[in-house]
Amino acid sequence: MPGPAPLSAVTGLPVVAMVGGGQLARMTHQAAVALGQSLRVLSAGPDESAAQVTGDVRIGAHDDLAALLDLAEGATVVTFDHEHVPTDHLHALERAGHRVAPGPAALVHAQDKLVLREALAAAGEPQPAWARVSTVHGVTAFADEVGWPVVLKTPRGGYDGKGVFVVHGPDEVADLLERHGVLLAEERVGMVRELSAQVARSPFGQVAVWPVVETVQRDGVCAEVIAPAPDLAEERAALAQELAVRIADRLGVVGMLAVELFETADGVLVNELAMRPHNSGHWTIEGSRTSQFEQHLRAVLDYPLGSTAMTVPVAVMANVLGGAASEPEWTGPGLDERIHHLMAHWPDVKLHWYGKAQRPGRKLGHLTALGDDLAEVRARAVAAARYLADGVVDPAFAFAEEH
Amino acid sequence: MPGPAPLSAVTGLPVVAMVGGGQLARMTHQAAVALGQSLRVLSAGPDESAAQVTGDVRIGAHDDLAALLDLAEGATVVTFDHEHVPTDHLHALERAGHRVAPGPAALVHAQDKLVLREALAAAGEPQPAWARVSTVHGVTAFADEVGWPVVLKTPRGGYDGKGVFVVHGPDEVADLLERHGVLLAEERVGMVRELSAQVARSPFGQVAVWPVVETVQRDGVCAEVIAPAPDLAEERAALAQELAVRIADRLGVVGMLAVELFETADGVLVNELAMRPHNSGHWTIEGSRTSQFEQHLRAVLDYPLGSTAMTVPVAVMANVLGGAASEPEWTGPGLDERIHHLMAHWPDVKLHWYGKAQRPGRKLGHLTALGDDLAEVRARAVAAARYLADGVVDPAFAFAEEH
Repeated sequence: MPGPAPLSAVTGLPVVAMVGGGQLARMTHQAAVALGQSLRVLSAGPDESAAQVTGDVRIGAHDDLAALLDLAEGATVVTFDHEHVPTDHLHALERAGHRVAPGPAALVHAQDKLVLREALAAAGEPQPAWARVSTVHGVTAFADEVGWPVVLKTPRGGYDGKGVFVVHGPDEVADLLERHGVLLAEERVGMVRELSAQVARSPFGQVAVWPVVETVQRDGVCAEVIAPAPDLAEERAALAQELAVRIADRLGVVGMLAVELFETADGVLVNELAMRPHNSGHWTIEGSRTSQFEQHLRAVLDYPLGSTAMTVPVAVMANVLGGAASEPEWTGPGLDERIHHLMAHWPDVKLHWYGKAQRPGRKLGHLTALGDDLAEVRARAVAAARYLADGVVDPAFAFAEEH
Repeated sequence: MPGPAPLSAVTGLPVVAMVGGGQLARMTHQAAVALGQSLRVLSAGPDESAAQVTGDVRIGAHDDLAALLDLAEGATVVTFDHEHVPTDHLHALERAGHRVAPGPAALVHAQDKLVLREALAAAGEPQPAWARVSTVHGVTAFADEVGWPVVLKTPRGGYDGKGVFVVHGPDEVADLLERHGVLLAEERVGMVRELSAQVARSPFGQVAVWPVVETVQRDGVCAEVIAPAPDLAEERAALAQELAVRIADRLGVVGMLAVELFETADGVLVNELAMRPHNSGHWTIEGSRTSQFEQHLRAVLDYPLGSTAMTVPVAVMANVLGGAASEPEWTGPGLDERIHHLMAHWPDVKLHWYGKAQRPGRKLGHLTALGDDLAEVRARAVAAARYLADGVVDPAFAFAEEH
């Protein structure tokens, strides 16, 4: 076991080190500042999203053990803005006396979809029919049970729809197996929609749960998050929350856990897990008394958790993915000018811009709209995001050029 | 006039440079991160509040012109977390082609109380009776009109009750005049309480106004801020807001303006001005749709201003001043442990800790409580702040040791 947790000599407060310099680390840093801290980040380069905004930046790779050990030195705890650190390195950090949260035994369930499927099966939790496949025969045998198409997933490394393949017959399978070796095969679930249940758990065992949200995907990427999930039966919401708490407890999660769910006619099935702040929780910055970023810090530090009460009846988050305005041939208003127009037109929509270079398809930022009326709040968030991404003015929100 | 405003080559967005590395810069940085920016700060040392948490830190003095010019180079605009930059240096920055917000002609009214009194007199705005005094005779002549005691203030450099002297007769005056030369003499106002009216103003001339708040002082230092000011007549609140807007317009303020007011039986009188985010506006981080820190950035960048709607019926901010727990002989729970207990007991009180070394009397952080019921919200904020500052558990909030 590690000794007493190191604290900053300047502030007398913890130093949290985060592996990864993306927008999740960036927003975690904002939360750390309020808690008297400053996030230390391991970033692949100085221009990454979090590296731009925090003082203690270590440039290095998340799979370089020396860089990880340097990051951990003097930090109270090491945590993550992604799942890509090799498990062996996490064990090595622990052996060197560093606190790692979530620990490797928990985190592997967010890293490896096959490990997750096995754990959920052992626990009897609801999930799609699945099989571990390494041969075409294996896939066709599975398809004989669940029918085509079958969803094939790389066990590790996938995100935002990458590493996910919908195959409609055996002849689409061989290439994938040759490229990836072992795959996870899943039934294609006849789902109504996708939900996300987020909880935080501390080493002490305290758990805090947010309202279940609906996540709206476009092309496999999260486009919108609606909190709370509209028209979700109270009983089903409670079941989803209890499921998330059970998983957090059973796996020994420390920090944030997002349980991504398929909602079907009959209930919910676990799709996958993230053990960090997650896109489905960005709405909590304004929409909940405690944001997922602050809560992640509280949890990994074993601070008591904050209130998850919503601050408004409805919060809708819309991602801004690089669109027409990120194309090289774009001749419309530049980013700074678009932000001017956005602010003029929607003075109560909250902007979170990640400071990245604009590229088509890239998650560049997000917007949160808040209010009472779901349809109105959602239309506002989506129109604002579309304007920022594509420079397209929704006719319902047409506005004069203010400048 | 300056040429086109420089933007960051990495992000395509503005770079705001702030003179001063205190908590106001620290919290402005948090707001800048959401807008895709990172605050550049000029800090007296690397351990100052803002210097700990942002990447682009220049170490230097606010009265060193070379340091100011270096700070301004490549920045879109230069702004301030205090009023202490010499006016000549501000003019020099402008002459070198840099944008300065607020500009020197406006800022001098927050720097020099005599200049403010003259400007308000010329504008016919309500203020205490006052006189410019440099002799004992001048003070006694003024006291003949308004009665003793008289309040003497140093025109420049005072804050948090420093540079303010209540004198009860002529024999207390000579020493002060010898030490300070010219002073501002003011009647001691028979006030009911102190209020603050905050507005933001952009170069375009847009103005945004928050609800008028009550500021509760202890020993000349702000202890609590209650938003909105309880039982303030609607008409009087509107008059105070209009007064703040008129002052912002007339002086050409760019950025945040706090108009500190004395409320008397008959109305309001202007006490002094701050042209930057101000302690009386910290409640806006959670209590308003747009915080004063985001609004200051929007204003100095000539972005359209954000909504100032309150997010809750009542917000109370309590400052945490270094108290018993900051004394060298303190043997109770350390800061990190006190934060644990604070979070356990008040899971919905929001902490803002400035990362400073603890010293008695120093502003170390603040807490914000939110809700519907004024008495309950206020009791919660004050008890939480008292626990953090003094380690004293209010009997009304007695709690078991959770750890």
